[in-house]
Amino acid sequence: MTSQSLLDGLVASARPLAAQGKPADYIPALARSDPGAIGAAVMHVDASLVVCGDARVPFSLQSVSKALALPYVIDSLGEEEVFSRVGKEPTGDPFNSIIRLEASRLKRPYNPMINAGAMVVTSLMPGATVEEKLGAFSRYAAPLLGVARLDLDQEIRDSEAATANRNRSIAWFLRDLGLLGAEVELTLDAYFGQCALLVDAVGLAHYGAVLARDGLEPGSGRRLMSPRAARVTKGLMQSCGLYDGSGEFCVEAGLPAKSGVGGGILASARNRLGIGTYGPALDIRGNSLAGVHIIAGLSKGLDLFCL
Amino acid sequence: MTSQSLLDGLVASARPLAAQGKPADYIPALARSDPGAIGAAVMHVDASLVVCGDARVPFSLQSVSKALALPYVIDSLGEEEVFSRVGKEPTGDPFNSIIRLEASRLKRPYNPMINAGAMVVTSLMPGATVEEKLGAFSRYAAPLLGVARLDLDQEIRDSEAATANRNRSIAWFLRDLGLLGAEVELTLDAYFGQCALLVDAVGLAHYGAVLARDGLEPGSGRRLMSPRAARVTKGLMQSCGLYDGSGEFCVEAGLPAKSGVGGGILASARNRLGIGTYGPALDIRGNSLAGVHIIAGLSKGLDLFCL
Amino acid sequence: MTSQSLLDGLVASARPLAAQGKPADYIPALARSDPGAIGAAVMHVDASLVVCGDARVPFSLQSVSKALALPYVIDSLGEEEVFSRVGKEPTGDPFNSIIRLEASRLKRPYNPMINAGAMVVTSLMPGATVEEKLGAFSRYAAPLLGVARLDLDQEIRDSEAATANRNRSIAWFLRDLGLLGAEVELTLDAYFGQCALLVDAVGLAHYGAVLARDGLEPGSGRRLMSPRAARVTKGLMQSCGLYDGSGEFCVEAGLPAKSGVGGGILASARNRLGIGTYGPALDIRGNSLAGVHIIAGLSKGLDLFCL
Amino acid sequence: MTSQSLLDGLVASARPLAAQGKPADYIPALARSDPGAIGAAVMHVDASLVVCGDARVPFSLQSVSKALALPYVIDSLGEEEVFSRVGKEPTGDPFNSIIRLEASRLKRPYNPMINAGAMVVTSLMPGATVEEKLGAFSRYAAPLLGVARLDLDQEIRDSEAATANRNRSIAWFLRDLGLLGAEVELTLDAYFGQCALLVDAVGLAHYGAVLARDGLEPGSGRRLMSPRAARVTKGLMQSCGLYDGSGEFCVEAGLPAKSGVGGGILASARNRLGIGTYGPALDIRGNSLAGVHIIAGLSKGLDLFCL
Repeated sequence: MTSQSLLDGLVASARPLAAQGKPADYIPALARSDPGAIGAAVMHVDASLVVCGDARVPFSLQSVSKALALPYVIDSLGEEEVFSRVGKEPTGDPFNSIIRLEASRLKRPYNPMINAGAMVVTSLMPGATVEEKLGAFSRYAAPLLGVARLDLDQEIRDSEAATANRNRSIAWFLRDLGLLGAEVELTLDAYFGQCALLVDAVGLAHYGAVLARDGLEPGSGRRLMSPRAARVTKGLMQSCGLYDGSGEFCVEAGLPAKSGVGGGILASARNRLGIGTYGPALDIRGNSLAGVHIIAGLSKGLDLFCL
Repeated sequence: MTSQSLLDGLVASARPLAAQGKPADYIPALARSDPGAIGAAVMHVDASLVVCGDARVPFSLQSVSKALALPYVIDSLGEEEVFSRVGKEPTGDPFNSIIRLEASRLKRPYNPMINAGAMVVTSLMPGATVEEKLGAFSRYAAPLLGVARLDLDQEIRDSEAATANRNRSIAWFLRDLGLLGAEVELTLDAYFGQCALLVDAVGLAHYGAVLARDGLEPGSGRRLMSPRAARVTKGLMQSCGLYDGSGEFCVEAGLPAKSGVGGGILASARNRLGIGTYGPALDIRGNSLAGVHIIAGLSKGLDLFCL
Repeated sequence: MTSQSLLDGLVASARPLAAQGKPADYIPALARSDPGAIGAAVMHVDASLVVCGDARVPFSLQSVSKALALPYVIDSLGEEEVFSRVGKEPTGDPFNSIIRLEASRLKRPYNPMINAGAMVVTSLMPGATVEEKLGAFSRYAAPLLGVARLDLDQEIRDSEAATANRNRSIAWFLRDLGLLGAEVELTLDAYFGQCALLVDAVGLAHYGAVLARDGLEPGSGRRLMSPRAARVTKGLMQSCGLYDGSGEFCVEAGLPAKSGVGGGILASARNRLGIGTYGPALDIRGNSLAGVHIIAGLSKGLDLFCL
Repeated sequence: MTSQSLLDGLVASARPLAAQGKPADYIPALARSDPGAIGAAVMHVDASLVVCGDARVPFSLQSVSKALALPYVIDSLGEEEVFSRVGKEPTGDPFNSIIRLEASRLKRPYNPMINAGAMVVTSLMPGATVEEKLGAFSRYAAPLLGVARLDLDQEIRDSEAATANRNRSIAWFLRDLGLLGAEVELTLDAYFGQCALLVDAVGLAHYGAVLARDGLEPGSGRRLMSPRAARVTKGLMQSCGLYDGSGEFCVEAGLPAKSGVGGGILASARNRLGIGTYGPALDIRGNSLAGVHIIAGLSKGLDLFCL
């Protein structure tokens, strides 16, 4: 069992790191985050929970939503349909890179954990309107996060839409390659929506615990997602989950994880527990400094290194 | 425990795959391999062994040697020295790509599992001559592979040296970046030497079992390598071990592994076992078709998926 | 003086080439062009004219418009403003490449003769609406082409707008880099408009003759554009005017020229004459097969090679 | 005729530019050049000569040798053989870039004016030994430069060979692509030799005057090279002669030219004259600051802009 003192110690030792990074500043709403906020939660597969710090502070999913959208479209459309449009390989490139869409032989995004691949995934979400798409996705994702419903931060969504020139460029390129399952604007609208969904560290820990049992709800053991969707998602989190810091994280923590520029990181330890962290001060690759520190510390302290 | 029948069945079902690939043909000595050969071995951490097919057929390590050379230089020079010259990130590029050396901001190879990074590692091996370098490396690696000594296929080494234009190009570029710890020709000579060391599937399974316990000899529990070197190696095998097929393998098998164009693949399952496979028919990325099939099958049959 | 028989012979010998290429097919309206059509015109600086074949068949300017838009914004805003946003270097890349916008250190299009650079130029055209922008541009360009007014093929413009996913992707990327002088949609609208302006080979020859005297109207000697704008335009036509076929054309013809996927090519010979050709069958780089043949032939026959 | 006062004025106004750049420092022998040295020479096609400053100071050809080696192999082997191994397109990349060798579809250097392409050209020089190759090349080049024989700076050659890691990397890559006509070391040896040949500004002006008449000796009119070799060379100088500054130079000077990091630039004005400049202070692209200034000034003052 995770001891409260271990988690408290890691959160305390993470505090000085916040000064080494800063919140994402491309969106005013994100830039206003408290850079000193830090929270962490561990949920075991029996549903027992340990929390510390700002574990109940809501923040936007941002790229963590990629780890929810992927299993959703896999469970909705089947794996084959999804991976005919996006690959499974890490790239070493920044999250918003467009180069490989033109330069690679494959002419498709390398994986669903970078923006280009994630937009393809979002475009495949069932539904004719953005409300239908996000509504159905939220109904899939809420139980995974252990909540009754998902709220959306409209201010973040709006400012994301207003500043998303690069994402818009990527989306039109994907359209040119024939990879989108919906119109560009509808896809972008849904993508910004999924990124603006609110979560807290406890919710991420809950989802980590669901993944830890390949899709079963902590405690109850109720099936929330297919085992295959859980494994594919964890496999891609493992090799691509922290942008161009994925390889180093794999060495340090040895756990599948997914970060977002909202400051959250989600991690999962097979058959044992899920971890959720919050810390909006990011390193240059866009990963939460506090979150990486805490998860690596938990991996060491609880012997979670899975390799 | 791994049942003989499970392994036999996987080897049998792998046979038709051999026809879908072919042995590496850039070296005459490799091109002469029997494309239909298939062997597999599983060694548990208690040293019990299950084998099937051509598990005792010797073949050259080739890139599998990267998973031995890395912990060797870490244990010899320390982690910091090594990773000041090479990164830890997967790339999605082919094993012999040179582009990032020029185009990336870092100006160093992205990881030690691709040729560029592996040459940096080899250049750091202690020793003033190639004999000293390879001798000391072999003394480190032999116990990991469970053998008394390592032999070297001189014909393969020679033909590798004779045809290695691209590797030579990479080595000179690394020299230009100031990343090599030894002269270019000495580095290449040692690199071709380590690639030409002979092993069999049983030896790879033994090393997999060593890694499974973070460096302890199967059965005896004797320490053969530092825990840190074992973990770093497994972390990089996980994200970069199968060239530009690493991400898909991570999804399918969920195990750290390393392949070589000699036809071998090494995999490791934490606290349980090591796997070694041999099958010289390769897919277009350079990974053994039979090996990938067998390891994924064992992962499924024995519930080895670690994520 | 250009003899009629020389031009007739070149047009005749160009006819078989049409079968080796095909009209641009990304726009239905262009794909319907008669692939066998061939026309050529030579206008001397004294305004004397020699024509052959389909020299009066109207076609859309497409990329030839880049050689008109550039001097227009130079003469409107000044050279400094324009080249703070776009470079002067050839790239060797296809016309619709986006890679360098992300990968190059400069973070701006390399030259105004590829799509990315041309869109920057168009965004700078004075005017608050697309009608104002195109109206003023047409008033500048019409005298250069020797016509009273420029008509626009609305069907081509509409289908260009409907299929321009890649251009739209480029435009949003330019917006992200802060290089556009107008909104994305307004810029694209004006860009598709300038590409859809109708011209014929005689008009292109007229503009070539204007450039040949650094901006003076053939015959009258009336100044139509600044000498500096003419020279800058010719310099960039010389190194970048035929996409990734510019270098070879420079060797074969030794003349500044600009091609368009509508089938037109414009060339200019200092103090002597201008050339306009029409032939919608394109090579793989998007240059008119007949046009390249005829201009190279005229260069040889009339000793126009300027280097 | 070029007036002495024009040239004197340009040399004088070039002097302050020397402080904005610096000599190439990758070779000790080059780094020792006097950064304040400036020389210029103009040779008319009638062999009359105007000189100013350090026009008789010897310096090494470096990349200017590319404009001599190319016509040499064309005249020796024929154009077809040469251009089956190297293209004619500018790239916008630095002179020592290797990326396109791997990334481009063509798998050959884009043009003979960058290092990769120039090494292919050098590898094709007739001769079994480096002495034979350089001897025969020198006999071809000496009359073009208006001298009886060419001397070689052995110190520069040696230090070039000792520091040429990147060029060595490129050469092995070319070998891997099957593009070299000689062994790597022999090719490199000859390449460093041709770069270390000594010339002065008057010699470059002489060659410029030869090119100006497509291969005829100034004054005498004796044929020194084939007209086709002269034109192909000028065409490639025009689009690729000043590395990734070629496009801007084309706009500013409108003349075919070739620069070298030894500080020399060669330019040619059709049927009129040749220009040679010397000024070892280089801009960041490797072009002589004084040289670019003087040639652009002569182009303006003498109306040499050829486009």
